[in-house]
Amino acid sequence: MSKKYTIGLDFGTLSGRAVLVDVQTGEELATATHNYSHGVMDKKLPNGKKLPLDWALQHPQDYIDVLSTAIPSVLKQSGVSPNDIIGVGVDFTACTVVPVKSDGTPLCFIDQYKEEPHSYVKLWKHHAAQDKANKLNEIAEQMGEEWLGRYGGKISSEWIFPKIWQVLDEAPHIYDEADYFIEASDWTVWQLTDVHTRNVCTAGFKAIWHKQEGYPDKSFFKSLDPRLENVVDGKLSIDITPIGQRAGEITEKAAKLTGLNAGTAVAIAHADAHVCFPAVKIDGPGKMLDIIGTSSCHLILSEEEQRVPGICGVVEDGIVPGYFGYEAGQNCVGDTFAWFVDNCVPVEYHEKAKSEGISIHEYLTQKAENLKAGENGLVALDWWNGNRSTLVDVDLTGMIVGLTIQTKAEDIYRALIESTAYGTRKIIETFRKNGVPVNEFFASGGIAQKNPLVMQIYADVIKMPVKVGGGSQGPALASAIFGAVAAGSERGGYDDVFVAGQAMGKLEDKVYYPNITNANVYDQLYREYTTLYHHFGIEYKQIMKRLKNIKIEQSK
Amino acid sequence: MSKKYTIGLDFGTLSGRAVLVDVQTGEELATATHNYSHGVMDKKLPNGKKLPLDWALQHPQDYIDVLSTAIPSVLKQSGVSPNDIIGVGVDFTACTVVPVKSDGTPLCFIDQYKEEPHSYVKLWKHHAAQDKANKLNEIAEQMGEEWLGRYGGKISSEWIFPKIWQVLDEAPHIYDEADYFIEASDWTVWQLTDVHTRNVCTAGFKAIWHKQEGYPDKSFFKSLDPRLENVVDGKLSIDITPIGQRAGEITEKAAKLTGLNAGTAVAIAHADAHVCFPAVKIDGPGKMLDIIGTSSCHLILSEEEQRVPGICGVVEDGIVPGYFGYEAGQNCVGDTFAWFVDNCVPVEYHEKAKSEGISIHEYLTQKAENLKAGENGLVALDWWNGNRSTLVDVDLTGMIVGLTIQTKAEDIYRALIESTAYGTRKIIETFRKNGVPVNEFFASGGIAQKNPLVMQIYADVIKMPVKVGGGSQGPALASAIFGAVAAGSERGGYDDVFVAGQAMGKLEDKVYYPNITNANVYDQLYREYTTLYHHFGIEYKQIMKRLKNIKIEQSK
Repeated sequence: MSKKYTIGLDFGTLSGRAVLVDVQTGEELATATHNYSHGVMDKKLPNGKKLPLDWALQHPQDYIDVLSTAIPSVLKQSGVSPNDIIGVGVDFTACTVVPVKSDGTPLCFIDQYKEEPHSYVKLWKHHAAQDKANKLNEIAEQMGEEWLGRYGGKISSEWIFPKIWQVLDEAPHIYDEADYFIEASDWTVWQLTDVHTRNVCTAGFKAIWHKQEGYPDKSFFKSLDPRLENVVDGKLSIDITPIGQRAGEITEKAAKLTGLNAGTAVAIAHADAHVCFPAVKIDGPGKMLDIIGTSSCHLILSEEEQRVPGICGVVEDGIVPGYFGYEAGQNCVGDTFAWFVDNCVPVEYHEKAKSEGISIHEYLTQKAENLKAGENGLVALDWWNGNRSTLVDVDLTGMIVGLTIQTKAEDIYRALIESTAYGTRKIIETFRKNGVPVNEFFASGGIAQKNPLVMQIYADVIKMPVKVGGGSQGPALASAIFGAVAAGSERGGYDDVFVAGQAMGKLEDKVYYPNITNANVYDQLYREYTTLYHHFGIEYKQIMKRLKNIKIEQSK
Repeated sequence: MSKKYTIGLDFGTLSGRAVLVDVQTGEELATATHNYSHGVMDKKLPNGKKLPLDWALQHPQDYIDVLSTAIPSVLKQSGVSPNDIIGVGVDFTACTVVPVKSDGTPLCFIDQYKEEPHSYVKLWKHHAAQDKANKLNEIAEQMGEEWLGRYGGKISSEWIFPKIWQVLDEAPHIYDEADYFIEASDWTVWQLTDVHTRNVCTAGFKAIWHKQEGYPDKSFFKSLDPRLENVVDGKLSIDITPIGQRAGEITEKAAKLTGLNAGTAVAIAHADAHVCFPAVKIDGPGKMLDIIGTSSCHLILSEEEQRVPGICGVVEDGIVPGYFGYEAGQNCVGDTFAWFVDNCVPVEYHEKAKSEGISIHEYLTQKAENLKAGENGLVALDWWNGNRSTLVDVDLTGMIVGLTIQTKAEDIYRALIESTAYGTRKIIETFRKNGVPVNEFFASGGIAQKNPLVMQIYADVIKMPVKVGGGSQGPALASAIFGAVAAGSERGGYDDVFVAGQAMGKLEDKVYYPNITNANVYDQLYREYTTLYHHFGIEYKQIMKRLKNIKIEQSK
């Protein structure tokens, strides 16, 4: 039998990529990235119409363009025949929501709606439905909704119901015209297979669905807004498919678009973080995976369903089949470092980096590496884009204390890295305190691959070895693994995701072990972080909210 | 009678300048600046010897060089004959302390001491004697020293006794070899006149001297350290001269150095902030002067001696004769803005400023001007170099809250400006609450002259009109005014400093009036500032101190 391959498709915030992978070895033969031509629309629509603060839209044509350019590209680059491609997996940012007609056509593709902001895709980081989320949480608490506990006591404005509710409230005709609101991941699978599926991962983590209990009751949605009473039956789907299944097969139309053979297996969609587990060879509970990119996502399996305050959620079968998958996260990690480099680095650093032929991140990292733990005298709160866990509050903002006129750019850069490590430690401690053991720590994602200083600081702060895995295309590789599982052993793939992961996943030889001297200093600094966390995040959280309100008022 | 002129000499942190002024009109005919060739020595001695954290030294040769270059330069530039120069006034940073032999020779001029850090001038912002200040304050409080109340309950590490004590402790042989510790201002007057005087301003504001009570008792100094028992008699002088007097006349030697005539009147030295009153035409109590430069200094006169917590001090005749002069201050104003520009501004801003042919400060100011009050969503604590008033704590550090990935450089720049305005408002409110009326507000110094945005924000935050005066060389002009008073009317000068100020001082026509809309927003933001001030400055001030301690420990 000839060698078999799968293709993993990973749709990120700014681009989508395809990776073509050897099913037996996990070797990546080719990769191709397509940058979304519309990118993130957070200032204006394609027609120039201005968008309000906190909006973030996307254009679904960009996703189609990934299918029509990146897949042919990896086929061509690798020289692999479509006959030997046995499966495709898709992962996507979430919760990223497309309003569509019953045949899957996005409303923004239709002339009469394309001037309307609400007809576009609401990207995961669209934060303009915060008031809806607040109201939803408030009513859920009043009504004693039991499911709140699964989501750390609060759901996020990034999730599907606040986003749908915002559409209903601000553009009821768009709400009416949309036959479905669907995750972009499931929509993409739909484009490939002509099968409308809904994956359990985003249903559970972003749409309050539970394997035994289903969605919240109609009476709950009615009490949000009478027009929402039938939102589940009318706009979503109650047919939820577990992760690890086959969604369908490539259609003739999709075959033309992508160059794949019709009939190729396509996996149920997955979220771009949650998908990664098998890519780092994690094979059971107690092993945390932190995917560190623009934001970060902390995932862990357990055999039990626990209530953990401030996490994003717990979903049975939501990460891999057979376990309760837990998610927590940090809104702003690489984004914070990028913000710093874009806004706060002196000219001469840029010049020196240029003359040394390295990136400014590399240059700053070199300088930050020369600092000892605590030598910067700074502690920051890592809330530049709100706090996802364990406070679940997008209105929180960044803070930095200890600044002096001796403070250098590298001091701040390191403090920002450290702050995200403290945030991760806070998440780990919260899991442990609430019955979810965290015994090992794996890191994946761009920053995990590229920045050893970040990984060393994480090891020192959390006081556990950090194992890096997943390669440079972790989610795409993971999707390729799920593609192999969708194909199944009868087509040359696998029937079990852990088995597939052990064969196809990647784990680096290098492990970052905690440096005890630094770890002791970070214990002290983490105490300061905790004090500030409590002050700004709980006791006096209104400070940040009032500042944000004044800012919104004065930005009008 | 031919026109008469005086020369004002102003010794700042990085340079000294001379201005030659018409005694009748205040017109500045010539000005010359000499940059100290040793600058601020905060990293190493001239021989390369490394200095510890928080040190800041100067070389007295730089002061001599100002006399020998800037005075001849203004004479030459103006073409004024030395015969028509009737007086010289000197102002200086304070507390800036020179250890000298009995003939005035600085120890660092002597070969055997010039390798020793403690033989050099300790600049006002030498902060390495903080532990001494802490201990001094603690003992003073235990002993119920009444004078503490005059200084807001605490003296600063910048003052003379902590600095002297540090010398004694770390280099007892230098302490022994020094016949005097003297303010650089009085030392400079000594170089010009061969008369060893001590001005009441720095004696009162920096050396705990009081017109009625003199210095603290020997028993107090003894309880600090038995070797300090006779510090006043042994190392200072109890002969204190009021402001507004003549110290002496230019000697033959000084005439050769400067090109002035021997016999020219020289005023008693003054501090570079306190000297400014007459330069902005202030003529009585209730009128606050804020001198805004790298740091800022708030001065006000009252007919009564009050106890005001957290101010720098109150000294009878210490600013002008006949009134109680009060001082408060902010450690870091222009320094903070400069820190920001040096460390935190993106490359493209520098490029755009360059292409527009303006300074980066001007460019940022333009961008910050386009923001409404509160639109940045930020509040900062203005403690980048500690807090002088009203917390008197150099170990406090800067803090900024409200940062997001949308935050731009101009947002932070404006927040830093606003933070210094809040700090000034806190000082004003503290004076008012404690029986010292503040009815008018005058601003002087480089930033007052150069940055209308800063002045407008100050007006909006303090809700009083801001009048700008003193010209571009406020302290130097003021010193020239005191030079005219030192000459007296018999030589063509004046006998009264207020009369001299009215004739020679400068007040701009433009007044910055509060914008009520902004003032209302700033009222809200000031409440947030006050909350943070209380949190980080009082209730949880140990956070900043612990961070600083870790930093010091880890910098070793």
